[in-house]
Amino acid sequence: MKISLFRESRAGETRVALTPDAVKALVSDGWSVEVQRGAGTLAHFSDDAYSQVGATIVDTPAGDVNLRVNAPTLEEVGQLPEGSTHLSFLSPLLASEVVRAMNERRITILSFDLLPRISRAQYMDALSSQATVSGYRAALAGATHFDRFFPLLTTAAGTIRPAKVLVMGVGVAGLQAIATAKRLGAKVRAYDVRSAAKEEAESAGAVFVKLGVTADAAGGYARELTDEERAAQQTALLGEVANADIVITTAAVPGRKSPILLSTAMVEAMGEGSLVIDMAADGGGNCELTVAGQIVEHHGVRVVGLANPPAQMGASASFMYANNVLKLLALFGAKGELKPDWSDEVVVGVTVARNGEVNHAPTAEALGVERVAISAPKENE
Amino acid sequence: MKISLFRESRAGETRVALTPDAVKALVSDGWSVEVQRGAGTLAHFSDDAYSQVGATIVDTPAGDVNLRVNAPTLEEVGQLPEGSTHLSFLSPLLASEVVRAMNERRITILSFDLLPRISRAQYMDALSSQATVSGYRAALAGATHFDRFFPLLTTAAGTIRPAKVLVMGVGVAGLQAIATAKRLGAKVRAYDVRSAAKEEAESAGAVFVKLGVTADAAGGYARELTDEERAAQQTALLGEVANADIVITTAAVPGRKSPILLSTAMVEAMGEGSLVIDMAADGGGNCELTVAGQIVEHHGVRVVGLANPPAQMGASASFMYANNVLKLLALFGAKGELKPDWSDEVVVGVTVARNGEVNHAPTAEALGVERVAISAPKENE
Repeated sequence: MKISLFRESRAGETRVALTPDAVKALVSDGWSVEVQRGAGTLAHFSDDAYSQVGATIVDTPAGDVNLRVNAPTLEEVGQLPEGSTHLSFLSPLLASEVVRAMNERRITILSFDLLPRISRAQYMDALSSQATVSGYRAALAGATHFDRFFPLLTTAAGTIRPAKVLVMGVGVAGLQAIATAKRLGAKVRAYDVRSAAKEEAESAGAVFVKLGVTADAAGGYARELTDEERAAQQTALLGEVANADIVITTAAVPGRKSPILLSTAMVEAMGEGSLVIDMAADGGGNCELTVAGQIVEHHGVRVVGLANPPAQMGASASFMYANNVLKLLALFGAKGELKPDWSDEVVVGVTVARNGEVNHAPTAEALGVERVAISAPKENE
Repeated sequence: MKISLFRESRAGETRVALTPDAVKALVSDGWSVEVQRGAGTLAHFSDDAYSQVGATIVDTPAGDVNLRVNAPTLEEVGQLPEGSTHLSFLSPLLASEVVRAMNERRITILSFDLLPRISRAQYMDALSSQATVSGYRAALAGATHFDRFFPLLTTAAGTIRPAKVLVMGVGVAGLQAIATAKRLGAKVRAYDVRSAAKEEAESAGAVFVKLGVTADAAGGYARELTDEERAAQQTALLGEVANADIVITTAAVPGRKSPILLSTAMVEAMGEGSLVIDMAADGGGNCELTVAGQIVEHHGVRVVGLANPPAQMGASASFMYANNVLKLLALFGAKGELKPDWSDEVVVGVTVARNGEVNHAPTAEALGVERVAISAPKENE
């Protein structure tokens, strides 16, 4: 059967869903692989590199399994073969016309956003792998935009004090931001509403800030705070924020608007020349002043809204995403044949819809159709 | 007596010659200090911050001692009081109409470029302090433009190999570039024609590359290589360059055109997605393809010509420069009075001209005037 790799159409995107090494592995496993011309160019993977490992370069791919990083556009959905399989991120488009159109074409719709957060699935967790890139880039953006050194330096021209970085949100991205800022020599403090984050933040090199507000929820995510809790949190945070040179916010909730952690008043409490690096800008931002892809200056503080941060490092982000794809595809087939195990909770969890039936409850509700759960165990297809 | 701090007129400049803390120290020492309106704005030092420590904010400063980072323009020279003192970098304008015009106004012209490289003068060495900033920024630019991680990362989505960085030129800037790339987790190799650089490069975290070509010269600088030596060096370097992901070049020779270390052929030997970060772009660059302030893409390799790198970090660069200024001014006067000790080799060395007489031999030759050396000991003025 045929796997197709598409060129991403999202503005500013540099990633690609398979690297040449990943294609090589699929070809060895018996799959036919076709690559849309120029798919890897912006991640520095040439068409030649793909064809050398056995892929066919084409202008209009149409596979049994179709691979992207981002959701397809409506026009791109129209070019997908009926009944084929499509894998990508879909959030925030899970409940959209794009998904409806794919479902009408009876496409088996797989979305990394829905991957169950269980230990066995971490090798396929593209949300985590891309968050690793985002956290690293957020810390680098902090160092690049800051007009002072990050490390302590003792020089003949005076002693430079280390920069003070506050990381808000200690998930995968936050941990990588902590580690990177720490590598560069900054003094790092970190805050998260999940109390379990303390140990991880400390092991990455941060001092964990305790504010007395926690919001632990299932699946390793934070639940949304109540209005009262958020007010208490923000009051307690004010002093921490005012004392930081750089605040890095990483509280992105997949498929939801990013929660506001930094009010305009908090930004105004920061010193002249300070920075906010907002990693959640694509979801509206964790700071009231954030504009995705722009630097907003307010009272001498610059608020940097990072747009699609993994795309700033296309080669590494694609390498990690492609590894996630290979691991997930292994649950859906082998030796060139699609043969999903519908009794596997990861297979079921990641599947938005198949055969025109929507499995993902919120999507079914939003599209106004009845949910048809994939029940396991069930006859293999 | 009055010290005047000027707003820099050079395009893209963010630095300022004195910080508010430095002004405070001068005021305590009995000097009157005036600050040109907005002088510190781009380094995040407000006019208020200067006036709070005793400076007067003015539109057209005219001091007994006039402080800048960059050389003044001809128009700015016309606004300097006759017989006053002016301190800044002057290179590459040491032998120019600007210096001639200052000399005609009998200005005592001091240039950090001429500071004797002796141990006692290192506290005043603004070339070194600004090179520290440049080296840090060069490594950051490498990490920012590279589309892969610098550190080794072992993740569920695969193992990321560390980036391979080659630093060419192990002076103050090169050492800081090595240290910063190393902090970020890269594997760093370094090369310098001065054999003494080996130990320093290693202590900063690099593997020193031996190519069999050395060019040790007086004063801690490298002498220029002969054409034959350069050819041998470049042949031997080719393998090193081809194996690097990021080449950082730092071979700037004050007041001279930057030597070419990287030929176009060497860039073509580098891999797709590799980078050259050229810190010597303002002097023409160490790479044949360099254009200052631009990113040139050639055969899939991007050549980043860093223009005025210390200006990318105005606050720290100004802090260090201001400390250098304070230390140097202390040799020229105290308690609000100019009283240079013309028997001090640092005072003499840093002085291009005074009383209409040119002390710096190359400048005198270039301007077609007879050099009048400041001889010591001599009656204090």
